[in-house]
Amino acid sequence: MAGNSILLAALSVLSACQQSYFALQVGKARSKYKVIPPAVSGSPEFERIFRAQQNCVEFYPVFMITLWMAGLYFNQVFATCLGLVYVYARYQYFWGYSEDAKKRITGFRLSLGVLALLTILGAVGIANSFLDEYLDFNVAKKLRHL
Amino acid sequence: MAGNSILLAALSVLSACQQSYFALQVGKARSKYKVIPPAVSGSPEFERIFRAQQNCVEFYPVFMITLWMAGLYFNQVFATCLGLVYVYARYQYFWGYSEDAKKRITGFRLSLGVLALLTILGAVGIANSFLDEYLDFNVAKKLRHL
Amino acid sequence: MAGNSILLAALSVLSACQQSYFALQVGKARSKYKVIPPAVSGSPEFERIFRAQQNCVEFYPVFMITLWMAGLYFNQVFATCLGLVYVYARYQYFWGYSEDAKKRITGFRLSLGVLALLTILGAVGIANSFLDEYLDFNVAKKLRHL
Repeated sequence: MAGNSILLAALSVLSACQQSYFALQVGKARSKYKVIPPAVSGSPEFERIFRAQQNCVEFYPVFMITLWMAGLYFNQVFATCLGLVYVYARYQYFWGYSEDAKKRITGFRLSLGVLALLTILGAVGIANSFLDEYLDFNVAKKLRHL
Repeated sequence: MAGNSILLAALSVLSACQQSYFALQVGKARSKYKVIPPAVSGSPEFERIFRAQQNCVEFYPVFMITLWMAGLYFNQVFATCLGLVYVYARYQYFWGYSEDAKKRITGFRLSLGVLALLTILGAVGIANSFLDEYLDFNVAKKLRHL
Repeated sequence: MAGNSILLAALSVLSACQQSYFALQVGKARSKYKVIPPAVSGSPEFERIFRAQQNCVEFYPVFMITLWMAGLYFNQVFATCLGLVYVYARYQYFWGYSEDAKKRITGFRLSLGVLALLTILGAVGIANSFLDEYLDFNVAKKLRHL
């Protein structure tokens, strides 16, 4: 278990901390801008922070799934590096959005790009494993033969 | 790793793509119905698409957990087929809801049915593994003996 | 597979059931307080139940990730016990919030405490596996030697 997924595990814990951090920022913004629960509107500053966190929440399971699939079926080190870029992109997105709705774009595009790449790597890795497992056709071996 | 979870992995990547697709539809609806971030209300058409996506987001981790548990502890092929039905049900739900709030019902009921089935299969598989592992009582073997 | 994760699997299915249960309560509250989809406001009672469920949804992937990391890399039984406390804390939080926004605090603090503990255990377990795997330095063995 440890060998082929330890970097993915470490990154998962790191990104879980980031998710909790974003959630706590929303809680702080609640008291700062006096938005009393269960309300989620009333102050544009709070609304931006809240929407930023909600967007991170929406994409978090998608990120986790594609990270682990790319890491387990394609390459762990490569997937982990992309995952670090994603964590950075989400950081940039969150604080950009909290300042100004327009400043969310850069971080958001970067995070989508990483997700797209992880998805492609995961799909390629799974397709390769599938061919190898069920049709006994190993692409990497064939390439080495050429 | 590959052998007993490759179909689950493939379905997970597929459903992650579907989640991203729904999120991008919300983005499109934002510009179409001129709902400027961070607002999430103002146009009933946008609100329906947004709620449809939010509901898919809410259930996505539950789907992933029950899919993998049913697939790993009960039967991979069966769980994957149910997972495909879930992806179809969510597609129907999303586009139904975006047209009319009443049209969301069919897809939603189907998706809940699939989740219930996956949960039951997962629980049965886990209970069976538990008996086998800790009490050395193998239900499948007992049945074969009869 | 079964041996080192069966308790985590059982708890995951249990908590997935809890998530579905919370979602169904929101559906019930919709008809009780006559909040017609796609609206999510209009009745303070409904809004509290809705926000309670949304908060559970936000933290669910974080809970799953930290539970599995703590269980696989630190100790399965200990992580599962903490997970049971989390499920109880979320139950208390949900029904507390649905009665009164102030009553959400106790359950929420308990759930955050459990998450923090699971995160620390996961991080310690992963760090230990990392030292063992890549630097051939086994902390547990060193401690036994002393």
